[in-house]
Amino acid sequence: MTTDPLVIFTPSGKRGHFPIGTPILTAARQLGVDLDSVCGGRGICSKCQITPSYGEFSKHGVTVEAGALSDWNSVEQRYDDIRGLPKGRRLGCQATVQADVVVDVPAESQVHKQVVRKRAEVRDITLHPSTRLYYVEVQEPDMHDPSGDLQRLVTALRRDWDLPALEADLGVLQEMQTALRKGEWKVTCAVHHGDTTFAPRIMRVWPGYFDGEIYGLAVDLGSTTIAAHLCNLHNGEVVASSGIMNPQIRFGEDLMSRVSYGMMNTGGAAEMTQAVREGMNALFVQIASEAGIDRTLIMDAVFVCNPVMHHLFLGIDPFELGQAPFALATSDALSLRAIELDLNIHPAARVYMLPCIAGHVGADAAAVALSEHPDTSEDLVLVVDVGTNAEILLGNTEKVLACSSPTGPAFEGAQISSGQRAAPGAIERVEIDPVTKTPRFRVIGSDVWSDEDGFLDSLGRSGVTGICGSGIIEIVAEMRMAGIVDGPGLIGSAEQTGSPNCFADGRTNSYLIYDGTANGGPKITVTNRDIREIQMAKAALYSGARLLMDKFGVDKVDRVVLAGAFGAHISPKHAMVLGMIPDAPLDKVTSAGNAAGTGARIALLNTKARAEIEETVRKIHKIETAIEPRFQEHFVNASNIPNAVEPFPILRGIVSLPEVNHNDGGSGDAGGRRRRGRRGAA
Amino acid sequence: MTTDPLVIFTPSGKRGHFPIGTPILTAARQLGVDLDSVCGGRGICSKCQITPSYGEFSKHGVTVEAGALSDWNSVEQRYDDIRGLPKGRRLGCQATVQADVVVDVPAESQVHKQVVRKRAEVRDITLHPSTRLYYVEVQEPDMHDPSGDLQRLVTALRRDWDLPALEADLGVLQEMQTALRKGEWKVTCAVHHGDTTFAPRIMRVWPGYFDGEIYGLAVDLGSTTIAAHLCNLHNGEVVASSGIMNPQIRFGEDLMSRVSYGMMNTGGAAEMTQAVREGMNALFVQIASEAGIDRTLIMDAVFVCNPVMHHLFLGIDPFELGQAPFALATSDALSLRAIELDLNIHPAARVYMLPCIAGHVGADAAAVALSEHPDTSEDLVLVVDVGTNAEILLGNTEKVLACSSPTGPAFEGAQISSGQRAAPGAIERVEIDPVTKTPRFRVIGSDVWSDEDGFLDSLGRSGVTGICGSGIIEIVAEMRMAGIVDGPGLIGSAEQTGSPNCFADGRTNSYLIYDGTANGGPKITVTNRDIREIQMAKAALYSGARLLMDKFGVDKVDRVVLAGAFGAHISPKHAMVLGMIPDAPLDKVTSAGNAAGTGARIALLNTKARAEIEETVRKIHKIETAIEPRFQEHFVNASNIPNAVEPFPILRGIVSLPEVNHNDGGSGDAGGRRRRGRRGAA
Repeated sequence: MTTDPLVIFTPSGKRGHFPIGTPILTAARQLGVDLDSVCGGRGICSKCQITPSYGEFSKHGVTVEAGALSDWNSVEQRYDDIRGLPKGRRLGCQATVQADVVVDVPAESQVHKQVVRKRAEVRDITLHPSTRLYYVEVQEPDMHDPSGDLQRLVTALRRDWDLPALEADLGVLQEMQTALRKGEWKVTCAVHHGDTTFAPRIMRVWPGYFDGEIYGLAVDLGSTTIAAHLCNLHNGEVVASSGIMNPQIRFGEDLMSRVSYGMMNTGGAAEMTQAVREGMNALFVQIASEAGIDRTLIMDAVFVCNPVMHHLFLGIDPFELGQAPFALATSDALSLRAIELDLNIHPAARVYMLPCIAGHVGADAAAVALSEHPDTSEDLVLVVDVGTNAEILLGNTEKVLACSSPTGPAFEGAQISSGQRAAPGAIERVEIDPVTKTPRFRVIGSDVWSDEDGFLDSLGRSGVTGICGSGIIEIVAEMRMAGIVDGPGLIGSAEQTGSPNCFADGRTNSYLIYDGTANGGPKITVTNRDIREIQMAKAALYSGARLLMDKFGVDKVDRVVLAGAFGAHISPKHAMVLGMIPDAPLDKVTSAGNAAGTGARIALLNTKARAEIEETVRKIHKIETAIEPRFQEHFVNASNIPNAVEPFPILRGIVSLPEVNHNDGGSGDAGGRRRRGRRGAA
Repeated sequence: MTTDPLVIFTPSGKRGHFPIGTPILTAARQLGVDLDSVCGGRGICSKCQITPSYGEFSKHGVTVEAGALSDWNSVEQRYDDIRGLPKGRRLGCQATVQADVVVDVPAESQVHKQVVRKRAEVRDITLHPSTRLYYVEVQEPDMHDPSGDLQRLVTALRRDWDLPALEADLGVLQEMQTALRKGEWKVTCAVHHGDTTFAPRIMRVWPGYFDGEIYGLAVDLGSTTIAAHLCNLHNGEVVASSGIMNPQIRFGEDLMSRVSYGMMNTGGAAEMTQAVREGMNALFVQIASEAGIDRTLIMDAVFVCNPVMHHLFLGIDPFELGQAPFALATSDALSLRAIELDLNIHPAARVYMLPCIAGHVGADAAAVALSEHPDTSEDLVLVVDVGTNAEILLGNTEKVLACSSPTGPAFEGAQISSGQRAAPGAIERVEIDPVTKTPRFRVIGSDVWSDEDGFLDSLGRSGVTGICGSGIIEIVAEMRMAGIVDGPGLIGSAEQTGSPNCFADGRTNSYLIYDGTANGGPKITVTNRDIREIQMAKAALYSGARLLMDKFGVDKVDRVVLAGAFGAHISPKHAMVLGMIPDAPLDKVTSAGNAAGTGARIALLNTKARAEIEETVRKIHKIETAIEPRFQEHFVNASNIPNAVEPFPILRGIVSLPEVNHNDGGSGDAGGRRRRGRRGAA
């Protein structure tokens, strides 16, 4: 008795014996090797490309001779002529086993391929989309054995793809009969694999082999901006990214003013719901047009947002979130259909909303947890998502705590005399010369610093318009390091500080950043009231983090991750000089960029991650700062601005303060002071 | 050790020992006794009424003393004062066990009570609705342990009612927070128990105890009329029944002309879909107003219809049903949301469509099977649903066969010279005097026969307008029995027949039924062409039945059931005289009334029946008449009109024909000839 040839797949190492003539795709399926195919081995889709290896494989104990696979055939030749096959590649459905062989499945031929993330410290995304394409040949109707077209289609999908008994969207019932006949009983189906709310379903049917792709949206629905990534659901690639202002801004800059708008105006909440959905649809039009795709090819969408946006987007009046006990309508994840939310993507498209953690800690924080995974960190990690409210996670493999801290909108440039949203013209980077005590800065939309040639020209029409959130943080930190402001937060006079930019301004002093009045522009200053606002905001943030540390029973953390669109722009050093975050070695303070958006993308591309984050959120310990006396204590103690060196002698005298106690001193790193602020990976 | 008192429930016979002080409702729940409650034992809903029995029970071996239950209490007194409790009744949640007791659960206190059907030969409906009301007290939000209001509501429903982890409709999320607070954390929920498409869900929330009912619709969507029963989902009662003309009639009287309209006109199918949905909504407004209820209390709806209406209602172009191989888009049952079909009932209401059996044998035939249960009949039963197409079922416990036979619209009064739809003014009952050979008749809308006093006055404004389907069948059968028409279908002359109503009409003879020309009314006659149309129609029907008998391998059936709104009006005797149906003893031919509508009502009230009919339909053997040569053979042989007595000697001579061979003779029952036609139970 002769033995059938041995087929070994790499990288999985799976192996088995197969009769001569077995297609590689068939062998892969029987062994459960992850080899892609949309057409089911009919030589149409070319997704099952593999690379045979020849020679001796000591690890596997086989020698592969040329001729171990069948000869290159006409189907492969045709595909190569039209689209080109990479050198050494074969189509797994065409190449058949002739002798022992080692076959490599390249990453792009794997269904559950890894989508690589740029940051070294985080996990790649394993592709596991909700919806996939399947090509099938359907039995024609037969009067001797009458059955519905759908039933024969479902039978074909079960037979060829081992899919369960599928249901069909009403839209599928309406379009399927035409597609089946136009495609001569060959069709491509988009199949949603089901979740806890929906049974597995056929969502769309195309006649013949659909030579296109289907897409998903990962949407970060912020109070100020709505940002979306459009992803190819087959390979996980981001094909377009786009953002717009949240049209709800006309109802209030910050969340609490929107909640109030809803309470003060009959139908106000409904108005805001309509506004955000309209904005969303405008964004979808924009992003689809950018990618050059038809919006109806968007079959899945994942949304992350804070609780107020979550409720407003779903059409739930958020008034309960504006008052204790801050009760969410629902904290669980939601699975809906696009049509229920009036979204102009494919009407059968699914919408997944991540779970909320608590009344102040939303699905955006859950998304940050999904991206940054404090629950699997061996180190104790503090993750801070800085926005109007700071959402804070602290944890490691042992447990994860979460809270929200009412920082107010100062970090977003609001309630600051020259503050503005992050937009072209806003000052975002500042350095103050320790000798001359004069500032230099850079504004959004330009790479030229204010003391460099061509600065004004580089700004275009916007000019210098104000200071955005990251700008004000750098300014205050730089002012503290340059001895212009003291620990309790008072700006010194020109005499006290030796800075020509300090000037008396009523009963306190202000500091001039930029005087554009000569060119008809604004005069941009930092007032002592601005300093006070930042002190309040940073104290709130710090106190939230400290509270979690108390609850965890620690007084230091191993590392700090700054998340949020805003977090992406803060320089960690300035944040620490300001005392926004507890002490940590500076190289252990990293920016995660828009981690909430990344979390949305993970949940979009990997449905297994949805169950995972739902489970994680259930296990997170929620701490409500409003009812924790320790929070108030920390807050009172945290308003000082730490620095290694006290500035002007008239207030305190020159003293060196200990490095570790942030609230009275700090880790100001004079050597790094001139380091150019960097943008985190967004 | 003393033994706890024994509690025995009747009629179930379930028994158990319970500590003194145990409420009867609690004991019932622990034993799995079917005792209703909406409020969960809080003395609010009064659904748990029971009747204690006193005295000696030899069957159970116990003697029940007065005082076996706790004393009548203030909750019971209050309910009795306000609403009245029937004599001897107690509230199961208030009365507690004090000693051995026998407790009867009256029918109206059972959740799964039997809804009695009037006909002796069919099963009652076991109440098992999709949606029920549950009252719960929900834990208030707690900042120390934040969770969504929904999660606490779901927890309460699980704790008090043992319901699974429920999801919530988006509408529930939108209204729930207000309801919870308005009801001071007590609410009543409508919960859908789930099906293969939808997970169990909360559909609606009312503040406090909702002292009302929820409803369901059983809709028979016919080509000509749409009829609906509005049922109380808690007790199964029909609270209103109503019907309207199908507004699609303007696109064509019969189904095939509507299919053609869709093919000939761009957007024609969509137009018809809109028309039928609008008509449906008008009907719902009408029926809800008749019952005096709010339409949003309608939480479930079941639809039965033929395949063309099925497709048009769902928005599927029915063109494939107009041509071989008559492929349905889907044959399976469907579960949808009302909002998907633009139905103006509660937006979260569910819509259930029964499965179709085949391209010509629709969900209406499935509903007939559910009502008449050929699959559980020991006798071999032939069920005929007579409409534009006749749908025929033949079967017993061994197997069930089904086919559809193209009778055409003659049975509905179309293509008949004086034919019309069944509406006021239409002749529906006819008798021809065997001696004088003159007719008397009755029209819809009047109980007075045409030869009785006050006949014309009884008609009101309509007058006599034409002949409806049941009328034309009776006329032809009566003409045959009176010797006015012969077996092959020729009307004799006045001389041949001795009837003054026969007159020459072109190359053949016609028969005058009514001459209203003196009063400006119509002259209503039966032409030989009309006879021919009826012959074609009845031959088609008979051939379909014969074909199924061939396939079953029998040449007679044990009983015949005539179904359909039209079937309800046919007199079985006339149908047999005409040779519409195979021979059977006349007392074995019954009318099932609108069996399709009854099937819809069963599926509405008993969700278990849905799974049952889906299974039955899968097992039914479908026979396509169009491809069966035997059907054509039978058809050719079946056009003669049988009768015991041949009429006029000039054609054949007076001969008695054998009773059994329907195509040449029949079972005309002269003794029953004057029997007044009856309306079947509708």
